Formats: sequence, structure tokens, C-alpha cells
Amino acid sequence: MIQTPYLATDGIVKIFDESGSFQGIVLIERKNEPRGIALPGGFVEIGERVEEGCRREMREEIGLEVEIEGLLGVYSDPKRDPRFHVVSVVFVARAYAPPVGGDDAKRAFIVPLEEIPWRELLFDHATILQDFLGARGIKSCWR
Amino acid sequence: MIQTPYLATDGIVKIFDESGSFQGIVLIERKNEPRGIALPGGFVEIGERVEEGCRREMREEIGLEVEIEGLLGVYSDPKRDPRFHVVSVVFVARAYAPPVGGDDAKRAFIVPLEEIPWRELLFDHATILQDFLGARGIKSCWR
Repeated sequence: MIQTPYLATDGIVKIFDESGSFQGIVLIERKNEPRGIALPGGFVEIGERVEEGCRREMREEIGLEVEIEGLLGVYSDPKRDPRFHVVSVVFVARAYAPPVGGDDAKRAFIVPLEEIPWRELLFDHATILQDFLGARGIKSCWR
Repeated sequence: MIQTPYLATDGIVKIFDESGSFQGIVLIERKNEPRGIALPGGFVEIGERVEEGCRREMREEIGLEVEIEGLLGVYSDPKRDPRFHVVSVVFVARAYAPPVGGDDAKRAFIVPLEEIPWRELLFDHATILQDFLGARGIKSCWR
């Protein structure tokens, strides 16, 4: 029997207003354990592509139809999730409306890049966001 | 119970000779079903990072210690593997010795880029190699 790590996807969703100016990225407050602040995301389902899974999770968790810009990286440290081994494929995406928390997100909010609450971020999401800030323009990175 | 697609990793391994000149990439002839020509790779194990899984698979299947250069992309079409839904994280790597087939590889061989046997390639490995040829220098790509 084949056993591999669970597969998840997270999104760094850049929000722009009607005039096209960048407002910040979306973070959520998780409703379930582990609780805290995180990027929106969730498990990939059997039968869907990872980018489809990402768009679905963004729809369910932050109420947004997002446009995926590219892949930031694949995050696979066995200890990145305290519960079990979860590998996350992280995409950078954009949307043009405010997020609305749903599903696993108690609330969803826009955070300007200068105001990311680094110490409150769960999992390895601080690392992911550091990579994003370092990799803007979206080049390949992996860890 | 959480169910997600299986997670695998494949390697595009560039082989260089002692003088540093590029010889080609490594392909294998599979020992097990589905049979045919493919990139070396295999399932990621619980507890290992995907790049560790890639290096382990290259050791087991083509007998090489490879140096990973970067991520090519994440391939997740549910129909890419005829058996079940397998998502593959594909890395580009390099090595400085000839490959030796082992494990799931009946044989391993070096193929110059002009001689890739496109029609014999299994899974979506022709797509992956087209992306590699298009993305040289290793930029991000996903499908």
C-alpha cells in the first residue's frame, strides 16, 4: 500500500482595489486547531489539479475568485504542520474585491506587506511570506 | 478522514562528463507497469522533504548522487498517471557520472536533448520535458 504525505495548497492572494492599486495580501484567523493567523489554504482533493484546489479553497475560505499568477514553491518540511506531514504547493494569486471569511476561516482580512503579523503566523507561513517578499516577480524557489 | 492525491517526485538529471561538458539527461526503462520510457522518480515518503525524496529516488533508480538546481513545476492532472491520481513535483538536477539502472528501472541511459524519444515517453513526461526545454535557466512553471 502506498503512503505519501498529505497534499495541500496555500494562496498568497494580492488584493487590488477598483483603481488597480495594491491593498495588501489576505490572511485568515483559523476557526479550527491549530488556531491562529495563517494564509488561506487547504487539502487538495483527489481528482482536482493543485491550482484548481487552490482556487476552490480561496472561494470557500475567503470568498474570492482568484486569478493564479504563478507557483511560489513547494514546502515539505515534515514538521511544518504539528499534526502530520503535509506538503503544501503555494501559489501567488490576485483578486479585486475584499475577502470574506468562510469555512475554516473565522475571519479573513487584508494586511499591507509592512504590517504582516510575523509572530502570530502558524505553520511555516512566515517562511513562505519571507520567500514571497524575497521572490517578488515570482521566480522559482523551493524548501 | 483526509484523502489527498499521492505525492511523487521526478528528476530531470543533467549529466556532465569530467571535463564539464553536457552529455544529456537521464531516462529509464521501467521494470514495472506501466512499462516504457520515463524520467526517473517515485513516491515521496512520509517524513522526508520532497527534494530529499528526489535525491533518494535518483540514488535508488539511477545510482547517482544528484545536486538539485531548482524546481521545474508541479504536475497534477488527475489523468497524468493511468493508475490513480499522482501529483509530481519535478526538480532539475545535475550529476557527474553515468547512471546505472536499479530498483524500478530496468536500465538507465543518457539521452542528448535532440534525441529524446518523445513518442515513447510515459505519463506526462513529454509535457514535462517540453516545459524543461522551454524553461531552461529554470523559471517557475506549473500545470
